[in-house]
Amino acid sequence: MYEAFWRSVGERAATVIPGWQAMSYFSDAGALCWFLEPAFEREARRLHRLVGNAAVDGYHFVVGNGATQLFQAAMYALSYDAAAAGDKPVPVVSPAPYYSSYPPQTDLQLSGHFRWAGGDATAFTAGAGDEYIELVCSPNNPDGAVRETSSSGNSKPIHDLVYYWPQYTPITERAAHDIMLFTLSKITGHAGTRLGWALVKDREVARKMVYFVDRSSIGVSKDSQLRAANILAVVSDAYYDELRGVPRLFDFARRRMAERWQALRAAVAASGAFSLQEVASGYCNFTNQIVTACPAFAWLRCEKDDVEDCAAFLAGHKIVARGGEQFGGDARCVRVNMLDRDQVFDMLVQRIAAIN
Amino acid sequence: MYEAFWRSVGERAATVIPGWQAMSYFSDAGALCWFLEPAFEREARRLHRLVGNAAVDGYHFVVGNGATQLFQAAMYALSYDAAAAGDKPVPVVSPAPYYSSYPPQTDLQLSGHFRWAGGDATAFTAGAGDEYIELVCSPNNPDGAVRETSSSGNSKPIHDLVYYWPQYTPITERAAHDIMLFTLSKITGHAGTRLGWALVKDREVARKMVYFVDRSSIGVSKDSQLRAANILAVVSDAYYDELRGVPRLFDFARRRMAERWQALRAAVAASGAFSLQEVASGYCNFTNQIVTACPAFAWLRCEKDDVEDCAAFLAGHKIVARGGEQFGGDARCVRVNMLDRDQVFDMLVQRIAAIN
Repeated sequence: MYEAFWRSVGERAATVIPGWQAMSYFSDAGALCWFLEPAFEREARRLHRLVGNAAVDGYHFVVGNGATQLFQAAMYALSYDAAAAGDKPVPVVSPAPYYSSYPPQTDLQLSGHFRWAGGDATAFTAGAGDEYIELVCSPNNPDGAVRETSSSGNSKPIHDLVYYWPQYTPITERAAHDIMLFTLSKITGHAGTRLGWALVKDREVARKMVYFVDRSSIGVSKDSQLRAANILAVVSDAYYDELRGVPRLFDFARRRMAERWQALRAAVAASGAFSLQEVASGYCNFTNQIVTACPAFAWLRCEKDDVEDCAAFLAGHKIVARGGEQFGGDARCVRVNMLDRDQVFDMLVQRIAAIN
Repeated sequence: MYEAFWRSVGERAATVIPGWQAMSYFSDAGALCWFLEPAFEREARRLHRLVGNAAVDGYHFVVGNGATQLFQAAMYALSYDAAAAGDKPVPVVSPAPYYSSYPPQTDLQLSGHFRWAGGDATAFTAGAGDEYIELVCSPNNPDGAVRETSSSGNSKPIHDLVYYWPQYTPITERAAHDIMLFTLSKITGHAGTRLGWALVKDREVARKMVYFVDRSSIGVSKDSQLRAANILAVVSDAYYDELRGVPRLFDFARRRMAERWQALRAAVAASGAFSLQEVASGYCNFTNQIVTACPAFAWLRCEKDDVEDCAAFLAGHKIVARGGEQFGGDARCVRVNMLDRDQVFDMLVQRIAAIN
């Protein structure tokens, strides 16, 4: 979806890296995150200030190979003391429906530090039990819901805020949680650059996350960081200085998402066989208007009495979608990707509209 | 050390990435390694054919965030069946002195799949014991020794061949092991690009390694892969076509390594307090002459009777070097980096020469 935008920007967004540049493991040997390129950190912080979606002052900045690596680094940091004391792996929970990659990513190595404990947090929130890690994805993948930490004092939350940007949801507050994860791919579409970052309140947690990224991959591609710095600078510049005539990313993406949601709603209405999740509206501090959320995924439910497996039903109509049970949720639901290429998305809505 | 070379190459080695390029997670959705850029694979295979250091025909190609991530992916793949059967973690060994990062990388997550079991393989090679994973680093980090797999039938070897290039050691044979690891950083100096690759004989092992890289970081930076494809093409082109006038990387690096080893040997002779490891000579199939190895690290031993901790002794003379016990070896030895910047290396040899 974003490719058309970047083609329209043209030369300004190109990155040139001479053969002799950025050869070292180190970006700033004395820094806490010694493999973090200063230009990338500067542009990421600048964008957060522009959008107002997250507090940056006083936060440590850790770069990773996508939010995926940082989510593992954060679990490692939060479970380090328990593992050092010889305790059992710290349970990791996220209320269903949860991002389907959380369980296999958490348990990839059957770590002695942490272990996936399912989509039902009530077992942990109920009493004076042991500590647990809670993955708070907001807006949530797959259903776009705005989520908060469970109120239990035993929860160590990791806030996965990769979709907390104005094209997907109203920016209602400046988030200021202990650990907040972001990724380039959900802002600008550059998934292939594999670049995520964490804003971390506690210095010792940040230090352990840096250690994890060091031992897992000895840091993060400088080429990705240099390119991301360029890309994010183009995004911010367009808002800071109207005269440059650079297209504005969030305006573009917001418009496209609204069009797609309108098209999908029309198709669902035409079909009559489905329903969609409720989405929130709210005053967006970035756009200065009341907006309705346009989540990156639709959570489509089949309302036909004789259909218990929506993914299988859709497969029969040549529609590929991930089934709800993969998210710990209802098999009558599927997750539909709203960010695919135009051609794929157009075909999807046509096929949905034709089902009755 | 390599920066001067790439400055001399100039514009030819620059990489330009338009804003709209390489945005997807996928490089080739139908391929076994679906996040591998075809241009990078092509250039890496071409370089192996040119140098003759490793067999590529019939091998699967897996890209990773440095050899570091692939070493973990390989351990995961080799221990997968045991973990699935509920067995204890598979022991991982490497004869001392071994690369000091192997133990903390192996045990980072206290994996249920594999566990570091030390630098003494004899406990495993002796009898009809259980399977174990053996890390075979050749030429070896820290001492440059040429290593082979222990003869035990229970060994599942991973060959870490990141230094098996003609600037460091004679290319005596085309290696054809089950799993062979390489990295851009030790060939061209681009450590910041964080790009490694594995040549893997068995398709199922390769598939599991791809799964590991997927779950750990959802693939590898396309920007790094595109840049590496450019860089490796410049290296190969210089040998395939003399007329282009591009400097030749291996000639440059070989010459610089020989000069540095000569300087270090002179300093050690002037001092009288140290000895150096023995290094092999052999006929190099790439340069077509008998050459003496110039390892990437010197394994410096203090011969003074009253010095038991060489690293501490050198620290007293303002020389920073990693102590031998960190490699599971003798504390009378230290590892000296032969690839540092000119200024740092020159100071090192001056200070060593002055110790008596």
